[in-house]
Amino acid sequence: MSCYIQLSDPTLPGIIGLLNYRPETAKPLCALAEALLRTDEGLSALEREWIASYVSYLNGCHFCHTSHGAASCAHAHRSVDMIDEIEKGPASDQISNKLKALLVIAGQVQKGGKCVTEAAIHAARAAGATDLEIHDTVLIAAAFCMYNRYVDGLHTWAPAEREAYAEEGRQMAFEGYMRHF
Amino acid sequence: MSCYIQLSDPTLPGIIGLLNYRPETAKPLCALAEALLRTDEGLSALEREWIASYVSYLNGCHFCHTSHGAASCAHAHRSVDMIDEIEKGPASDQISNKLKALLVIAGQVQKGGKCVTEAAIHAARAAGATDLEIHDTVLIAAAFCMYNRYVDGLHTWAPAEREAYAEEGRQMAFEGYMRHF
Repeated sequence: MSCYIQLSDPTLPGIIGLLNYRPETAKPLCALAEALLRTDEGLSALEREWIASYVSYLNGCHFCHTSHGAASCAHAHRSVDMIDEIEKGPASDQISNKLKALLVIAGQVQKGGKCVTEAAIHAARAAGATDLEIHDTVLIAAAFCMYNRYVDGLHTWAPAEREAYAEEGRQMAFEGYMRHF
Repeated sequence: MSCYIQLSDPTLPGIIGLLNYRPETAKPLCALAEALLRTDEGLSALEREWIASYVSYLNGCHFCHTSHGAASCAHAHRSVDMIDEIEKGPASDQISNKLKALLVIAGQVQKGGKCVTEAAIHAARAAGATDLEIHDTVLIAAAFCMYNRYVDGLHTWAPAEREAYAEEGRQMAFEGYMRHF
């Protein structure tokens, strides 16, 4: 079944069709993604996309999970098979203890703002996370609770296969989120 | 207990302290609120703030629920007691059938993107909602699932009493969300 609203271009998948439909909201939505995901200040862009992809996985949003997963893979110069690793969350053995601890916080944010525990904050700090990294983790996780609901709440379509996201992921990683403005 | 991170100005409540802490993300967050809430295109600003306050109520976010409730009251030229009515959601008898139907959709978005039903979309359309109004309702509801998680996930403080939000609500309604930039 198709999107719940009549898009200007129904061939565009996921959030791309929605951004195209409503330019007034597209610009701040993309500016937020650019500010949150395209910097290495504290957390690297690779880690930021990893958090975004993991939260989207928890929300069951295939489009965001796979596209931001592909962006993380692009930063890592790895194939989209790395998304298997992202899905493991804090249980992955390919990430730092700091990122593991921040993924615990991200998973709590996904459940709800009030689910974030002081113990998880302390554990992240003990693993070396700064206030800025904790802040950015909470806001990335919160932002994907928005993007995911936007994409799935309006029932957009999404390519099934990971390989279809590889080029989009590279563009997100290296050209960024403001490239259409 | 205080905020999980050391804010630049710990006296600032709710999202205000967070926006002040991280200007890079503050600007797109405020630009998004301005685009979503400060227009009468389709839905009125009063209705937009009503949806924002109701979703924040469902998420248990006192700061956003009360401040956006106060903004809706300001648009309605009513006292903050009107927030009692906002809390009723689609059961309020002071709103149009269209807004009731859109609040059903907003409540589904609050649960998760995949919870939005075709039946709820059809009901909103039957009550006169346009595609743009359905789009904006889904995105407002989704956006407050972000703002609420940001505010509560970092454990910010918030004034308890509604009256403390009346002036802030007036400023949000009439001066907007970009007034600090």
